[in-house]
Amino acid sequence: MESGPCSRPAEPRHCVSGRAGAGLAFPAFPLSAAGAEPGSRIGTVAAVLPAGGCGERMGVRTPKQFCRVLERPLISYTLQAMERVCWIKDIVVTVTGENMEAMRSIIQRYGHKRISLAEAGATRHRSIFNGLKALAEDQPGCELTRPEVVIIHDAVRPFVEEDILLRVVLAAKEHGAAGAIRPLVSTVVSPSADGHLDHSLDRAKHRASEMPQAFHFDVIYEAYQKCSDFDLEFGTECLQLALKYCHRKAKLVEGTPDLWKVTYKQDLCAAEAMIKEKISQEICVVVNTKDEESVGHLLEEVLRNELNCIKVTSTVLDRTSGDIENFIDQCYSFICVNVVSSESRETRKLLSILEESSLPLLYPVVVVLDEQKLQESLVQSAAIIAALVKERNSALVGQLLVA
Amino acid sequence: MESGPCSRPAEPRHCVSGRAGAGLAFPAFPLSAAGAEPGSRIGTVAAVLPAGGCGERMGVRTPKQFCRVLERPLISYTLQAMERVCWIKDIVVTVTGENMEAMRSIIQRYGHKRISLAEAGATRHRSIFNGLKALAEDQPGCELTRPEVVIIHDAVRPFVEEDILLRVVLAAKEHGAAGAIRPLVSTVVSPSADGHLDHSLDRAKHRASEMPQAFHFDVIYEAYQKCSDFDLEFGTECLQLALKYCHRKAKLVEGTPDLWKVTYKQDLCAAEAMIKEKISQEICVVVNTKDEESVGHLLEEVLRNELNCIKVTSTVLDRTSGDIENFIDQCYSFICVNVVSSESRETRKLLSILEESSLPLLYPVVVVLDEQKLQESLVQSAAIIAALVKERNSALVGQLLVA
Repeated sequence: MESGPCSRPAEPRHCVSGRAGAGLAFPAFPLSAAGAEPGSRIGTVAAVLPAGGCGERMGVRTPKQFCRVLERPLISYTLQAMERVCWIKDIVVTVTGENMEAMRSIIQRYGHKRISLAEAGATRHRSIFNGLKALAEDQPGCELTRPEVVIIHDAVRPFVEEDILLRVVLAAKEHGAAGAIRPLVSTVVSPSADGHLDHSLDRAKHRASEMPQAFHFDVIYEAYQKCSDFDLEFGTECLQLALKYCHRKAKLVEGTPDLWKVTYKQDLCAAEAMIKEKISQEICVVVNTKDEESVGHLLEEVLRNELNCIKVTSTVLDRTSGDIENFIDQCYSFICVNVVSSESRETRKLLSILEESSLPLLYPVVVVLDEQKLQESLVQSAAIIAALVKERNSALVGQLLVA
Repeated sequence: MESGPCSRPAEPRHCVSGRAGAGLAFPAFPLSAAGAEPGSRIGTVAAVLPAGGCGERMGVRTPKQFCRVLERPLISYTLQAMERVCWIKDIVVTVTGENMEAMRSIIQRYGHKRISLAEAGATRHRSIFNGLKALAEDQPGCELTRPEVVIIHDAVRPFVEEDILLRVVLAAKEHGAAGAIRPLVSTVVSPSADGHLDHSLDRAKHRASEMPQAFHFDVIYEAYQKCSDFDLEFGTECLQLALKYCHRKAKLVEGTPDLWKVTYKQDLCAAEAMIKEKISQEICVVVNTKDEESVGHLLEEVLRNELNCIKVTSTVLDRTSGDIENFIDQCYSFICVNVVSSESRETRKLLSILEESSLPLLYPVVVVLDEQKLQESLVQSAAIIAALVKERNSALVGQLLVA
C-alpha cells in the first residue's frame, strides 16, 4: 500500500524529445497537423490516467489494463504513447493498493519516465480525483507541480496520438474543458422500466464521448471538490462535472477511430493485431557486407511491400556494438542476412547483444539466412520473413525455415 | 443487375439440421438455454440481411462485408452463422447491383444454402424494405413464403449465436417486435450547434441497440409501407419504425458482447482473431496406428491445454477415404502423426484428399511429424503445433519444423 497519496518510482522530468526511447514499441511517426512547437502555446500540462478498474466486462480475472498484449501489459503501451509526448510534464497513474507493486515493476521493466503513482479510489471519479490531488500541490508529501492544463486519459486506450492530445489541450486552454468525441456506432435507445423500447435517439444528434479529455486544472479540480458523493459514486463523465459544477461547456473535438477503448475480449485481440502491425512497419535489415548490390538490399524492397513498411533501415554488422545498441533502440524487427554464410560470428554477436539487452523487446525476430538460398527464392523467403515479423510467435524461435 | 426483385442462386429449403455443414468455419457448439425444439413454438421464420453498405467508415475501398478474413469474405461467416440455425427457412441478402455477381460466387464457393438475393436500395432502410418485399409474396417473380416472423440482422455481425436469435424471435412473437441491446461502452453526449457539450446522457438509462432484431412480418412490412421518404432516407433503426408506424414497443433483449458490429479496421482484426480462436478449438489428431499408448494420443492431451480445445477427436488414418471425407467436413485443424515414419503414403493420401476437396477450408494445417522426435520433445512440439494451428499463416506451408 502507498504511504502518501503519490510517489515517484521513475526518473522525473526526463523528456524523450520526440524520438523513440528505450522500450518504445510504437515507432515515433511524424506529428501530423497540429503544430511543431506546442510547448510555448500550452503552458504546463500533466496527465491523469485512472487504472483502478477491475475489468469485469472482459470476463477475465486480470484487470484489462494489466492484460498482456505480446507479453507486455496493455497499460505499458498507453504510458508509452503518453510519455513520448514531450510537452506532457507529469503522468499520474492511479492504481489500487493491491496492484501498486505490479505497477511499479511495469514502470521499471519498461523504463517508463515521468510517471507518478497515486492510489485509486473505489470508483472512476474517485480515482481521477486522487490523481488530481497528487498534482494540486496542496497535499502533503507531493513533489509534483500544479499544471495549467490536465489531460485525463484511459489506461486502456493505448493508441492515442500526439495530434489529438494537442488538439484537446488547446481546446481546453481556450474553453476550460474539452473532450474527444466519435460518431455513434449503434443507435442508442432508452428502455422503459419493463424492458421495452421507450424511444430511440437520433444518431445524428448524439456522439460517443471518448478520451482523451483536457481541462484547466483549476476548473476540474474545483468541480471534483464540489462534487456530490452521488456523482463521485455513480458518475463516469468528467465533462459533465465541469458543466454541472463549474458551468464550463466543454469543446467537443472529433477524434479518430483508434481512440477506441479496450473493453471486451475482442478488443484485446484487436489491440494485439494493431500493435503487431505498427511494430512490423519499421524493420531493420542487418547485413554483413557493404556491397549495395547484395541480396540483403534486394530483400529490403520486397519486404517493404510485404509488410507495408513505413521505414526500412539497413545496418552493416561489422560495426562496434555501441552502434548496434544504438539501432536496437529504435526498431523491433531485425532481419539478419549472412552474405558469407560461414561467417556467422557477427550474427551471434548481435543475437547475444539482443539477448543480454535490458530493453524490453517484443520478440526480437532475427532470421539468419543463407544468401544463396535467399537469392534463389527471394519472394517466397520474403513472405516467410514477413509472416515471422508479423506474427512474432515465440514458439517458432530457433526454427530453421527453408524457402 | 437483377431482373426481378429476388432470385435464388442456391438450393432452397435445405436444412443443415444443426450439424456442421460443408464449409462450416465455426464448430457447431451445443445450443444453450433457449430450448431444444424451437420449430414448433415459433412458426415460419425468415431473415433479411442488408449488405448494401459501402463501408466508408473502414477507410478501405472494399465494402466491409466483403473484406476478407482468413481469405474468406466476412459476409460468408455471417451467412454460415444464420444458415446453421435449422428453423430459419429463408435468408434474403440485399446487395447492390454491382456486387450481385460477387455475392453469387460467394454463395457458390462456400456452399451457402437457403439464400436468396434481392437488390439493395440507396439506404439501409430501403435495402431492408426490398428484402421484406422479396418475402411478401405480393411481388411478381418471387418464390419465397411469407414468414410469420422475420429476423433482421447485419451482414457484418458474424458471431451471432442461435441462442440470441431464438430469444429475439420468441420475444418478437409475443410482442410484435424485439431487438438485442448491450450496455453503452462510452457515455453519449449531445453537442450544441457550435460543437460544445450541451448535456450528457445517463449511461444507466440508455442502451446500445444492436442486431439481431425480429418482428411479426406483418408489423414491420406495414411499418415500411407507411414509412415516410425522410425516414427511409435518414433513419437507421427498425425498432423505431415499428414504434412510430405500428405502435409496437419492441421488447429489448440483453445480448452478448460477441454481437458487436465490424465497423472499423480494428474490428476486422478482432474478427480474424476470434475466428482463428474458434476454429482452433476443434482439432483432429490423425494417427496411423490404433495403439492407444502412441504418442499421437499423448499429443492430444497436451494440445487440448495449449489450444484451450473444446473438442479433440482422433482418427486412425488407414480408414477408407469415405471416412476421411466425413471428418474433414467437421473440423478445420488436423494434426497428422506418422507413427512409423517411413510409411507416409497414408499421410500423402490425406493431403491430396484435402487439396482436391471442394470444401472451402481455411488453411487446413497438416503437420507431419517424426514420432521419435515428437516423443523427445512433446511439449515444445505441441507449442509449435499450437502456434501453427492458431496463426494459420499460409507462408509457412510446406515448412519443416523441428522441435
